[in-house]
Amino acid sequence: MIRRGFQVAARLGHHRAPPGAPGILPRLAPASAFGSSADSLVSRFCPEKTDLKDYALPNATWCPDMLSLYHEFLEKTKSGGWIKLPSFKSNRDHIQGLKLPSGLVATSDKTDWRIFTRCIQVEGQGYEYVIFFQPSKKKSICLFQPGPYLEGAPGFAHGGSLAAMMDETFSKTAYLAGEGLFTLSLNIRFKNLIPVGSLAVLNVEVEKIEDQKLYMSCITQSRDQQTVYAKSSGVFLQLQLEEESSQ
Amino acid sequence: MIRRGFQVAARLGHHRAPPGAPGILPRLAPASAFGSSADSLVSRFCPEKTDLKDYALPNATWCPDMLSLYHEFLEKTKSGGWIKLPSFKSNRDHIQGLKLPSGLVATSDKTDWRIFTRCIQVEGQGYEYVIFFQPSKKKSICLFQPGPYLEGAPGFAHGGSLAAMMDETFSKTAYLAGEGLFTLSLNIRFKNLIPVGSLAVLNVEVEKIEDQKLYMSCITQSRDQQTVYAKSSGVFLQLQLEEESSQ
Repeated sequence: MIRRGFQVAARLGHHRAPPGAPGILPRLAPASAFGSSADSLVSRFCPEKTDLKDYALPNATWCPDMLSLYHEFLEKTKSGGWIKLPSFKSNRDHIQGLKLPSGLVATSDKTDWRIFTRCIQVEGQGYEYVIFFQPSKKKSICLFQPGPYLEGAPGFAHGGSLAAMMDETFSKTAYLAGEGLFTLSLNIRFKNLIPVGSLAVLNVEVEKIEDQKLYMSCITQSRDQQTVYAKSSGVFLQLQLEEESSQ
Repeated sequence: MIRRGFQVAARLGHHRAPPGAPGILPRLAPASAFGSSADSLVSRFCPEKTDLKDYALPNATWCPDMLSLYHEFLEKTKSGGWIKLPSFKSNRDHIQGLKLPSGLVATSDKTDWRIFTRCIQVEGQGYEYVIFFQPSKKKSICLFQPGPYLEGAPGFAHGGSLAAMMDETFSKTAYLAGEGLFTLSLNIRFKNLIPVGSLAVLNVEVEKIEDQKLYMSCITQSRDQQTVYAKSSGVFLQLQLEEESSQ
């Protein structure tokens, strides 16, 4: 039963509100208020040893395009510059030891949580994806193969499934590139439908970080870049996570 | 295995392309080219007798707010004016006897498809929602309760899960209000996070239908309208489905 237990709706982006307006977010000087380096964020995010299952690893349902591009980018991680991001069952696993700022925490008696983009655990049926991140350039690539449970029009991925994949890739990139935590806006122009079972490649870039916000862009296309599936932009709010108390 | 079987990537919205540019969509006069009345679309969409499971019915996981608002709108269907939309496992079930225009059809050997917003079948864990549609006003209301498999930040719904819910509510409304089939754009401004397990109410309106496009808006808020979760707009392309051959 998930009927109750929540009392807080976190209010976002209120630092642009008129003086005197209520808002739970403090006004912070841009960038300088954020002390965590990309290195420390990445090393916490990508633990060298963990018992957690990484869902961003190849399986038998990956199409040949997805598999070969995965290995191409995996090579790039060896020479430095690129990092393969692990993908755990919940964001709780990604931010271990940290939590949302007080006042933003929701309480519940549920224990079985999943990050939305890993909600379907049957291989190949839902989201298959892996994100590679290039810290020096603040860029990411997401290889995304929608399964038949992500359908919209018959035979094609639901626009909402791509929107969520964009939001998730933006989100991880924003966090690692500059402690971007919350989506403030998401604007998507759809160009072509993605056939279920095929590969779509999301190219994400941080365009600028200004006034506690990360401005990002994404182009989603086929591997050969001949078909553009969608273009989008997103704005994320910077917000530092707090250390979790040991109690 | 879902490795192959797709050859067509449908190209959307190309009727705005420069003269001579390739495009699979014919230029049609607005509105007049679309002959199906809302009544005939609705009656096909909402079959009186069917063996298909309707997922938009109350279950034990619905929170009291969701349940009582559901019954409030159900009352409005009795006096006419509002229609409760059924929600089947796949859009194939909603458009029985029809298909996408030739050239937009994807082929595959898969048989187990699910519409994205019904991808999780365990009650209460994923999407719980029901859409009510008011044909005369071209308006919809979606009651949405995100489960713990739709998580983004710990305890809150993923922004992408709300984006998909908006796209889906836009999509059904656009189809029934004017044969809107494909999302051309989706713009979302997030205001507050939705706690997992709580009710969010999406209010969708068709603002105008012009040049083969439906322009729509959505405001998502708590039942008491004291908390706005997000505002969005969407543009959908009109496109008539074809009769399926009996072969």
